[in-house]
Amino acid sequence: MIQNMTENQITLHIINALKENEKSTFDSIVDELQPYDIAQIYESLPDEHRTHFLLFLNMDLLANLLEELNKEEQLEVLNKLGIEKTGKVLDLMDNDDLASLLNELSPKRIEQLLSGMKKEESLIVQNLMNYPDETAGRLMTNRFVWIRDYYTIREAVDKLKSFADFAETLSYLYVVDQKRKLVGVVSYRDLLIAEPQEKIRNIMYERVISVSVDQDQEDVAQTIQKYDFLAIPVVNEENVLMGIVTIDDMIDVVIQEADEDIQKLSAAGKAIDFDTKAIVAAYRRLPWLILLLFIGVVSGSIISNYSDILSKVVALSFFMPMISGMTGNTGTQSLAVIVRGLISNDINKKIVTHVIIRELAVGLIIGLTCGIFITLIAYFWQGDPILGFVVGSSLFFTLIIGTLSGTIIPLILYRLKIDPAVASGPLITTLNDIFSLFIYFGIAKIFLTHLL
Amino acid sequence: MIQNMTENQITLHIINALKENEKSTFDSIVDELQPYDIAQIYESLPDEHRTHFLLFLNMDLLANLLEELNKEEQLEVLNKLGIEKTGKVLDLMDNDDLASLLNELSPKRIEQLLSGMKKEESLIVQNLMNYPDETAGRLMTNRFVWIRDYYTIREAVDKLKSFADFAETLSYLYVVDQKRKLVGVVSYRDLLIAEPQEKIRNIMYERVISVSVDQDQEDVAQTIQKYDFLAIPVVNEENVLMGIVTIDDMIDVVIQEADEDIQKLSAAGKAIDFDTKAIVAAYRRLPWLILLLFIGVVSGSIISNYSDILSKVVALSFFMPMISGMTGNTGTQSLAVIVRGLISNDINKKIVTHVIIRELAVGLIIGLTCGIFITLIAYFWQGDPILGFVVGSSLFFTLIIGTLSGTIIPLILYRLKIDPAVASGPLITTLNDIFSLFIYFGIAKIFLTHLL
Repeated sequence: MIQNMTENQITLHIINALKENEKSTFDSIVDELQPYDIAQIYESLPDEHRTHFLLFLNMDLLANLLEELNKEEQLEVLNKLGIEKTGKVLDLMDNDDLASLLNELSPKRIEQLLSGMKKEESLIVQNLMNYPDETAGRLMTNRFVWIRDYYTIREAVDKLKSFADFAETLSYLYVVDQKRKLVGVVSYRDLLIAEPQEKIRNIMYERVISVSVDQDQEDVAQTIQKYDFLAIPVVNEENVLMGIVTIDDMIDVVIQEADEDIQKLSAAGKAIDFDTKAIVAAYRRLPWLILLLFIGVVSGSIISNYSDILSKVVALSFFMPMISGMTGNTGTQSLAVIVRGLISNDINKKIVTHVIIRELAVGLIIGLTCGIFITLIAYFWQGDPILGFVVGSSLFFTLIIGTLSGTIIPLILYRLKIDPAVASGPLITTLNDIFSLFIYFGIAKIFLTHLL
Repeated sequence: MIQNMTENQITLHIINALKENEKSTFDSIVDELQPYDIAQIYESLPDEHRTHFLLFLNMDLLANLLEELNKEEQLEVLNKLGIEKTGKVLDLMDNDDLASLLNELSPKRIEQLLSGMKKEESLIVQNLMNYPDETAGRLMTNRFVWIRDYYTIREAVDKLKSFADFAETLSYLYVVDQKRKLVGVVSYRDLLIAEPQEKIRNIMYERVISVSVDQDQEDVAQTIQKYDFLAIPVVNEENVLMGIVTIDDMIDVVIQEADEDIQKLSAAGKAIDFDTKAIVAAYRRLPWLILLLFIGVVSGSIISNYSDILSKVVALSFFMPMISGMTGNTGTQSLAVIVRGLISNDINKKIVTHVIIRELAVGLIIGLTCGIFITLIAYFWQGDPILGFVVGSSLFFTLIIGTLSGTIIPLILYRLKIDPAVASGPLITTLNDIFSLFIYFGIAKIFLTHLL
């Protein structure tokens, strides 16, 4: 009935069903919805209907709903459910989602929430939370079906059937030996097309690509992306299968990591989104701004050293912001190319040399073009060819330096295992600012007698 | 035999097998490799072994290999294969991968490549290439199995078995009616657990989330991400099933779009990576730099209007780069938050108002903190409280303006359906530069008599 309705129409139908207390209508609507839709509808429901809505959902749907909400909303829902239902719902949640819900809550609150859960489920989550943030161990789920290598196809399918409600909808079954070590993988499709009495061992694929529990989430995402997998098994040091990481979580990781890169590159500080409170956002942005402020003061003191030239040739000050702005900008351009390139390239000496030479060439072309432009502009505007030459040649040199520092500094930081996205910005800005002023006033000083 | 070998060891084994001309050893190694691994090994092979390597691969593996290579390498491989084999391999390639291989080749070269292909396959690819770049139609594959709503489970499984080699390994089967209109979806798992004589119609899920052929790839990725799907069906205006888009392609899209955002935000121009030639990279970066150059000249001419103040109070020039740098930076910080927020939020009036008020508050906090800092620094450095006040209050106002323009301008552009990531940068920089200079010199002028 609801196939072609918009979300608003569905919401209205839901509200009606709630008002009329028609559980069967409600169920028939919700039955056709995706978890994401249910969450959207919950969020758009007026407050007075929310509790009723939650009461009408069964435990599975409640768990699905929770997985789609943000943390604040999750806690709101759990409050409305009460302790007993909370335990049951948490039992049903994917343990990776549950771990991220519990993350950053107070130990007391965590204990409270876990108290209503089954012992085994709560242990699994607590184990998961022992892995550091942003690692494969933290993101993995145990909602998957593993099979033994000595199973027949029929046995594997039977196991799959009995766990059907429990396991994530995926395309692979991982095969383990007696010690739970990962020894192979088969796809659902392989199961469908093989003869029922065939042994798993004979149809499985033995070179299983896996990641280790402590591997960084960015690595995991990269591996899944490279191999076009839908999921990847997670193993410990002994190659024992601990869980799986699924591609849908990895899309979130890729987006999150890109956001982080962007925020670091634009120095907005980590983790600011539309829901961040002003005071928190300001707090996260301020350190970098204050750093910039001091850099600005350093530049200012360099300028003050040349105040005699400046007071003699005031026109020099007209081009000062342009030169430092342009230098800073080329540096950031190169930085962005390097930071994103580091993600998708295997870095070796050959590539590094190639990129540095490439950026040097880019700097030369850019410097020459912009240098000639500004020489002409400065000449025609101020009517002084020497001033034009001073400004143009300064820009030429500073653009080359800007490009090179934007290339070499992040590469060095990467080598030293410091995140280039976060650390390069201030360093490059500082150095470029200082270099550009020295070059500008240095060249101006040489030609001072001609400028007067 | 190769389970625990590194890629280099495997490559050495492959080279040995090639040298000894041992096809069976070669096959046994390659059989355990993923397409990505095969591509990595091909890339690391010395030139003299490459042709031999290609000859040893069967058609399926050649097609897999091609899908993993970049365009230059793809063309190199096709050249080595010769026309006849090329046709056969292209027949086996995923049509979305083939379309992106053909993209941007000359019409003559396209015709040449397609000439060896089966008529039907080449028609499909040509159809695909009629959809605009970066749309669902362009990215979709026809390598999937559709079933009729009146099939039984057994019939569906039989169809699946007979197409097993052909279809992408996925978890869903899409259900169409007599007119090929999309009416439902079932998962492989549903097939495994249902009774063989049950009708598809009775177990299928009817509210299918789909995208239309002309939908932007970013939308498609967002939908897949929101719903945690592994694939999404693509339909035309009549709801006829045209193809599917798979999540592994969407991970690539998400990364590509994030790269584009970063490059636009850092004004590096589109599509520069480690392989881009210097002249091309410079050409792509120059437009923005030349624009910045002219903005710099505009700022310069504003400064020149205040040259009398500057020549009287040279110390004002010490703080000029700091003020414009800081303003530009807060603007970019806000811009980054907005641009990425637009991707993951549904934008409505409420959210826009909320974000603007939030950023205003952020601007106030940042402005106040930095303003007080620089007032004290300027006072102690130059020993002049009035100068300190002029610099500090200017910074306070410019930081608030910087934050607001970095917030409001991208939101307006988004509303006007102009990409905020690419267009906001120059606009925000220009306006912030101009505003900051007017405010700084405006305030300085008011207090000029006290500064002298």
